[in-house]
Amino acid sequence: MVARSPATGWFCVRDHARAELLRGGATDDVATQLASVLVPDSLTPALRRGSAFVDLARRCAADPAGLEPIAGPEFLSPVDPPLFRDFMVFEDHFSFGYRWRDMPVPDVLYELPVSYGGNPATIIGPGDTVPWPHYAGELDYELELGIVLAAPAADLAPEEAASRVLGLTLLNDFSARDIQRREMAAGLGPAKGKNFGTAVGPWIATMDELGEGPDLELSVLVNGELRGTGRSSEMIWSVAEIVAWASAGETVPAGSLLGTGTVNGCSGLEAGRLLEAGDVVELSGDPLGRLRTTVGTRRTGWEPEPRRG
Amino acid sequence: MVARSPATGWFCVRDHARAELLRGGATDDVATQLASVLVPDSLTPALRRGSAFVDLARRCAADPAGLEPIAGPEFLSPVDPPLFRDFMVFEDHFSFGYRWRDMPVPDVLYELPVSYGGNPATIIGPGDTVPWPHYAGELDYELELGIVLAAPAADLAPEEAASRVLGLTLLNDFSARDIQRREMAAGLGPAKGKNFGTAVGPWIATMDELGEGPDLELSVLVNGELRGTGRSSEMIWSVAEIVAWASAGETVPAGSLLGTGTVNGCSGLEAGRLLEAGDVVELSGDPLGRLRTTVGTRRTGWEPEPRRG
Repeated sequence: MVARSPATGWFCVRDHARAELLRGGATDDVATQLASVLVPDSLTPALRRGSAFVDLARRCAADPAGLEPIAGPEFLSPVDPPLFRDFMVFEDHFSFGYRWRDMPVPDVLYELPVSYGGNPATIIGPGDTVPWPHYAGELDYELELGIVLAAPAADLAPEEAASRVLGLTLLNDFSARDIQRREMAAGLGPAKGKNFGTAVGPWIATMDELGEGPDLELSVLVNGELRGTGRSSEMIWSVAEIVAWASAGETVPAGSLLGTGTVNGCSGLEAGRLLEAGDVVELSGDPLGRLRTTVGTRRTGWEPEPRRG
Repeated sequence: MVARSPATGWFCVRDHARAELLRGGATDDVATQLASVLVPDSLTPALRRGSAFVDLARRCAADPAGLEPIAGPEFLSPVDPPLFRDFMVFEDHFSFGYRWRDMPVPDVLYELPVSYGGNPATIIGPGDTVPWPHYAGELDYELELGIVLAAPAADLAPEEAASRVLGLTLLNDFSARDIQRREMAAGLGPAKGKNFGTAVGPWIATMDELGEGPDLELSVLVNGELRGTGRSSEMIWSVAEIVAWASAGETVPAGSLLGTGTVNGCSGLEAGRLLEAGDVVELSGDPLGRLRTTVGTRRTGWEPEPRRG
């Protein structure tokens, strides 16, 4: 498990590193200092240390004592990805989405994992409020899994790709349905339909905790009321295949975040009920924890003037 | 003008900073050291210094002597963007594109500037070879302008947005037409149709060099043969409107790159002729210089197995 807390900026990994150093006879001050160098305050710089960090994270996951300190504090988003791409690999969900847009399901969805590119600068964490963008009337949640890369991936086959995955986290791909529908009619994006706020956290469960192809039971609650449940095993492309295809012809840097797309049944579209300002949305699924965020109030802002009638 | 050279890693801005320090009476060694601290090796860290860097870049643009040293060397891509989004604001080009995909032009193209999110990790520079991805049969060039942000933008109106623009550069949004067509049928992306290599450079002409709404004459040559010409004044959304809409509801970090989409007439689709391995593609337009890249040879790699017939 890899996590960050707002109080101390630590990862459980940093505490584990410190404990290892102490067990090896390091003095208290040196152990503290060295652990903070080995494990910096956010994930992407940490992963640039290569196996020095990833091996620590794995040993931490195998050591329940290392997890104890994270029972208390609140969490920050565990990621600071250089790249965020979001895929669409749950068939019931995407079929529903195309019917909602009055379109047949395009063949390409069954031929390859299709994705859009998001904005890593708008990622929010547990306890945060998702800002309601001024240009949108219809806000929705999407319960997804986030795949976090431990190392850069470029032109990999699935077997190799699997070894680059650090772990999984919960991801709420908040969506502005009215503008998303308009953007997707252009075949491009979506951008404004998605980029205003993506919630990630509370922590990353590493692949050695989860096992290969884990079958997680996932659920969404809005204001404490169950709105949807689904299973991660219903993906039509595996985690390894998603990472492999993400890396085809391009480099996906260490620390990058790849969303799976909405788990079947886990959006407001499917539940027949979108979000309102003030709603509290809670995604959960053992052992990924609970990702709770609040919906903000609509703001005002500039919108383009149409160019012709 | 802001540029980087492979030999020394400098910007003309760094030379200008050094010259200013020398004129102020600094010793040679201190001027060299201080200039390299004020102007780091790549753009995004430099922009995090705020006006300390941008003011220098502006003074450099106003001082022709400051530009002299860059006549000699080759250039690297001048950008290392935290975010790359590409828009579609040239009407003749996008109308042609939808006809090519057997689609009517969607209304949304006239209602707002639509964009997709690219991969900043696959940006290449002048003199580089664009890798031909294994999954693609049809490769094309796209002559675009790249808009580079000097400061973060969030929820701005066009007037404010204009003040955040550092300058413009040439951008070749290389495109894999066969897979792009398939991806866009899903209304998502494109990803593999675009992310394998985007050429940027040779330098950034700052807005005080260019003036507001500059009417640049742009052209594409392939193997020395003219394939297309166009004018930047044919954009249906201005640079300021593109930046404003990019910033609506989200933060676009300093150093980010926003493409305008293909200038009318400046893709191989419109010229009726796509690229071949070994082709040399040259974009140019005064005062943005000349961006020459070579097309690589097709590689082999993993592709997904379709999920059903």
